[in-house]
Amino acid sequence: MSGRSCLAVVLAAGEGTRMRSDLPKVLHKVAGLPMVGHVAEAARQAGVDRLAVVVGRGAEAVSAALSTHDVATHLQTERLGTGHAVLAARDTIALGFDDVLVLFGDTPLLSTETIERARSALASGADIAVVGFHAADPTGYGRLIVEGETLSAIREHKDASPEERKITLCNGGVMAISGHRILGWLDRIGNDNAKREYYLTDIVAIAVADGARVNVVEAPAEDLMGANTRVELAELEAAWQRRRRRELMLSGVTMQAPETVFLAYDTAIEPDAFLEPNVVFGPGVTIGAGSVIRAFSHLEGATVAADCEIGPFARLRPGADLSEKAKVGNFCEVKKAKIGKGAKINHLTYIGDAEIGAKSNIGAGTITCNYDGINKNLTSIGAGVFVGSNTSLVAPVAIGDGAYIASGSVITEDVSADALALGRARQTEKPGRAADIRARNEAVKAGRSAGK
Amino acid sequence: MSGRSCLAVVLAAGEGTRMRSDLPKVLHKVAGLPMVGHVAEAARQAGVDRLAVVVGRGAEAVSAALSTHDVATHLQTERLGTGHAVLAARDTIALGFDDVLVLFGDTPLLSTETIERARSALASGADIAVVGFHAADPTGYGRLIVEGETLSAIREHKDASPEERKITLCNGGVMAISGHRILGWLDRIGNDNAKREYYLTDIVAIAVADGARVNVVEAPAEDLMGANTRVELAELEAAWQRRRRRELMLSGVTMQAPETVFLAYDTAIEPDAFLEPNVVFGPGVTIGAGSVIRAFSHLEGATVAADCEIGPFARLRPGADLSEKAKVGNFCEVKKAKIGKGAKINHLTYIGDAEIGAKSNIGAGTITCNYDGINKNLTSIGAGVFVGSNTSLVAPVAIGDGAYIASGSVITEDVSADALALGRARQTEKPGRAADIRARNEAVKAGRSAGK
Amino acid sequence: MSGRSCLAVVLAAGEGTRMRSDLPKVLHKVAGLPMVGHVAEAARQAGVDRLAVVVGRGAEAVSAALSTHDVATHLQTERLGTGHAVLAARDTIALGFDDVLVLFGDTPLLSTETIERARSALASGADIAVVGFHAADPTGYGRLIVEGETLSAIREHKDASPEERKITLCNGGVMAISGHRILGWLDRIGNDNAKREYYLTDIVAIAVADGARVNVVEAPAEDLMGANTRVELAELEAAWQRRRRRELMLSGVTMQAPETVFLAYDTAIEPDAFLEPNVVFGPGVTIGAGSVIRAFSHLEGATVAADCEIGPFARLRPGADLSEKAKVGNFCEVKKAKIGKGAKINHLTYIGDAEIGAKSNIGAGTITCNYDGINKNLTSIGAGVFVGSNTSLVAPVAIGDGAYIASGSVITEDVSADALALGRARQTEKPGRAADIRARNEAVKAGRSAGK
Repeated sequence: MSGRSCLAVVLAAGEGTRMRSDLPKVLHKVAGLPMVGHVAEAARQAGVDRLAVVVGRGAEAVSAALSTHDVATHLQTERLGTGHAVLAARDTIALGFDDVLVLFGDTPLLSTETIERARSALASGADIAVVGFHAADPTGYGRLIVEGETLSAIREHKDASPEERKITLCNGGVMAISGHRILGWLDRIGNDNAKREYYLTDIVAIAVADGARVNVVEAPAEDLMGANTRVELAELEAAWQRRRRRELMLSGVTMQAPETVFLAYDTAIEPDAFLEPNVVFGPGVTIGAGSVIRAFSHLEGATVAADCEIGPFARLRPGADLSEKAKVGNFCEVKKAKIGKGAKINHLTYIGDAEIGAKSNIGAGTITCNYDGINKNLTSIGAGVFVGSNTSLVAPVAIGDGAYIASGSVITEDVSADALALGRARQTEKPGRAADIRARNEAVKAGRSAGK
Repeated sequence: MSGRSCLAVVLAAGEGTRMRSDLPKVLHKVAGLPMVGHVAEAARQAGVDRLAVVVGRGAEAVSAALSTHDVATHLQTERLGTGHAVLAARDTIALGFDDVLVLFGDTPLLSTETIERARSALASGADIAVVGFHAADPTGYGRLIVEGETLSAIREHKDASPEERKITLCNGGVMAISGHRILGWLDRIGNDNAKREYYLTDIVAIAVADGARVNVVEAPAEDLMGANTRVELAELEAAWQRRRRRELMLSGVTMQAPETVFLAYDTAIEPDAFLEPNVVFGPGVTIGAGSVIRAFSHLEGATVAADCEIGPFARLRPGADLSEKAKVGNFCEVKKAKIGKGAKINHLTYIGDAEIGAKSNIGAGTITCNYDGINKNLTSIGAGVFVGSNTSLVAPVAIGDGAYIASGSVITEDVSADALALGRARQTEKPGRAADIRARNEAVKAGRSAGK
Repeated sequence: MSGRSCLAVVLAAGEGTRMRSDLPKVLHKVAGLPMVGHVAEAARQAGVDRLAVVVGRGAEAVSAALSTHDVATHLQTERLGTGHAVLAARDTIALGFDDVLVLFGDTPLLSTETIERARSALASGADIAVVGFHAADPTGYGRLIVEGETLSAIREHKDASPEERKITLCNGGVMAISGHRILGWLDRIGNDNAKREYYLTDIVAIAVADGARVNVVEAPAEDLMGANTRVELAELEAAWQRRRRRELMLSGVTMQAPETVFLAYDTAIEPDAFLEPNVVFGPGVTIGAGSVIRAFSHLEGATVAADCEIGPFARLRPGADLSEKAKVGNFCEVKKAKIGKGAKINHLTYIGDAEIGAKSNIGAGTITCNYDGINKNLTSIGAGVFVGSNTSLVAPVAIGDGAYIASGSVITEDVSADALALGRARQTEKPGRAADIRARNEAVKAGRSAGK
């Protein structure tokens, strides 16, 4: 933002008692990321230099959730209103920034663009920019009284005239304030009101009285949605998902039933990928162009290259790394494993802690026995290997290129390239024995019935 | 209800031909319970002492569906209107109750609260309480003509004046009627109308003419929704699910995507449980506090203690009983099995008819071979046991505490505590044989091509 | 249609750049069938004799997608408007048809009924029938100026008077035109407009000037919905699914949560089938009466007879052919296999290239090892067979009627009828060894910690 330094004060001390949760409210997740993390990320992308987070209980947990950001944590010990809350960050604000943003930790849909527009207003000469939105039903919200481009007052609903109540442009809470004037104004906010609280909105009247310029920046109502209950949390999640699915579809991703696809905050999918219904993404997934993710698949922490086919009923866990044209089919789980080009893992298989070479074929029911109770051990499978069905690969073990494992084998020792390995018992047959068993069972049954 | 005895007459004789089903309409299920069962349960919770169900075909099946209630079944042999239908229960009504409710077997969203409010009206001196609702579009419904608190008439749509047609308060059908006066009034209902039917609604005019007091009790329109087709049945299901999901979320359960969670009528979930998208509950499930149910999980008849982790892709069947911090992971099925504290069953496993001790770890691909074609046999696994991957446990069999089963074993005999058990073939290798097989196959292929 | 010959010209040359796809727009799928295939199928069912498809790029792929239809493909090399596009099919039109329909390749919801009604208008003496629809917001659409039953003009939005803009009946694009007059009229369409394009809509004014009779046929707006982006494609899919689910429910199929059931264009389900939430159908599935498809099931190319039970978590692939009362349960995959009456495949099983006789029971974790790296081989299982859990059946292999396979066996040779077959290693035990392993591991761990 043209060389202006910027601090975002994120208010995150709300009790959230209606969430009925032990977890601080702002740590409840949307799209796999705590709500406050969304706000921090939007701020970062809008060029904010530093965050000051004002927390009540759970300070450590909130700090931990923001550990990838440059963040100062301030404790608000009393709950005396939003103006008071911002002042809890006084020490960080006093370090001196051109712009100070006031954001809310429970508005995960706040967009980078809205923050940028508020900052632009300051860059263009405003002393305060208040973010407003048009409410379908403005009852209860503070109305923004605007003259031309500038805001003359924020009128609380109860104080508004009938004419003013018709205004649908409402106060969204978010503000950008001149970093050089904010503390002077904050200190002048009083608590002469019914609840004896210090309201940040009062800063507007104080600034206007000082002859400062206060502008309004309009944002979609969605940007400012917060959550007080888990019902509202689910609504935020739904709105977030709709927005992101739409972006991906417009970029060239097909979703047969977008309402059944659940994305994480960082899901990346290239164009001409195709998603069947019912795909769930945890964090850390990238999908290459042309790949097909079939129904009932669950992916987290996985890298899928171009032209792969996943599912239906596939689970990719962290560290699954699929090369081009690899296939992972139904009832298969892959974790911490590098799968080579065109390799196939199609049925009822568990691959963990493994490397599989190009074009290898892993038969149905194969299990890498990677855990011995203490350590996770590596299974290394070369290129062009054929692993017969129902094979147990007891790690650590290595299978050479081009080897062939007979179905039903337990493989405990390395197999040489191009060798055939077997580890299964010889079949025996007891003629007529099944008929005998049945006859005996029938007799037992008959006896039971007779005994009744 | 303050010592007043109460009978609910449940009308359940509707043919339901538009359902196109062999099943009587009221036995179609919502949230896993027949519609008439929901009505009976709401009545029970509202303190109703006895049910009289009026049925057409399928009398036995309807009675069976209500077997946990105190219910008298009456057959309505002719279909001559609602007034006639209630009289089919004359013998039970004549036993003498303070309150008689008339309910409908295909309105599964009828709430206990609505029934209680109708009964309260009687307790407060009304002779009849008619349940009404506000219709968004009242066309076709009977309008409730109200003066103050009392109902003066029910006006059928076709008979209503233009002014009366503007009334949106409509007759919901459900009534509470003085048990001491109902039979006298019912007997006076005539059939002097186009269809020659006896309409229960006529009881209001008769009672008013007698100088009786008739009150209106308002209920949400949803409470009175019925189903004539499977499309409407699905709408009832959707409304039921929305209502119950909302209750659970407000009580402290997180659902990332509530619209993808399907609850049964008796699903119980404690606060701070977390549900990923796509979880389906059959009847009989309880989930403890702090447990996480991941995506694509299906639970029925299962008890899950606190802090467990289920799924993704887990199936818990009746009799699955998980202690605290147990884990059941992907592509695992558990039925009729007690799983100890902190035990883990994480991949591609079938556990049936079993007990597993605390902290035992069941490897990927483990199968309890519980069925021998006649009997289901028990697998007993102690505490701290490590079952290697791809193990078959042929029941009846017992594994002692602290034992270790080598991967790929078939275990047919009991294993002592702290012992290592193996049951697998020794591995052999045929060097170069895989290359030979490939070469031969290539030759066959080439021959095929040449032969074309 | 009473002996009248009919050609449908399907316009399918749109670039579809906003789809951001390498695939031609009309080949994007709805319900598993390319959009243009839906249009062609509706035309076929409305008695259309021949199709002329006008394509831009991807001509071969579009032709291939319509290979089951009698179709002539015409290339539109320049993009000069809809009138010009229809003329690209001049050679086929010139063959002479009573009726010529103009349809659009990206309107997959166009119903047979709408086409039939347009053709009926011609059969009743009209020279042109224009399909119109009522738009909730008609802004931007051409308005249909109607006098009585006949259309006097199509007025573009920009040319419409304020009074005309209130008209909500809009031009849907689809037309039926006398085959004997169409070419003369098309040749008279000019391009004297801002874009220098030839608009098919101008044919109406030309025909009216000739004294021809032009009628309007109204259709639901949905019928005429097209897709320019993948967001709109998803909306078409959703509308298609809603329509088809509704038809099936009204015919007697129960869907607990219809919004979670995804049907293919040709899914056939008989009455009193019951579908739990989350069922996905690929092409080629038929479900018999009374069958239950439980949650999280995926079916494609499968035939399911009456009274079967599928799922939860079942996958039926092409060639799965289930006889009455068969069961396929959780985490089971069946492909190219005939399953006998009452046979059960209930847990973690892969059945491919197989035949299973009546009442056979396939144990948990059974795998047919059908693929040897080159060929797919057959597994044949007789009637009344009991296959123990975790069995590998190495094909080609045949199991006789009434045989019994011991759990954990690898079966590589045929088993006689009524025989018991085993193929598993003998169990051995090393007393105390597990305790030793643990002690050693503890020591290693302790050493690691000490070494830190």
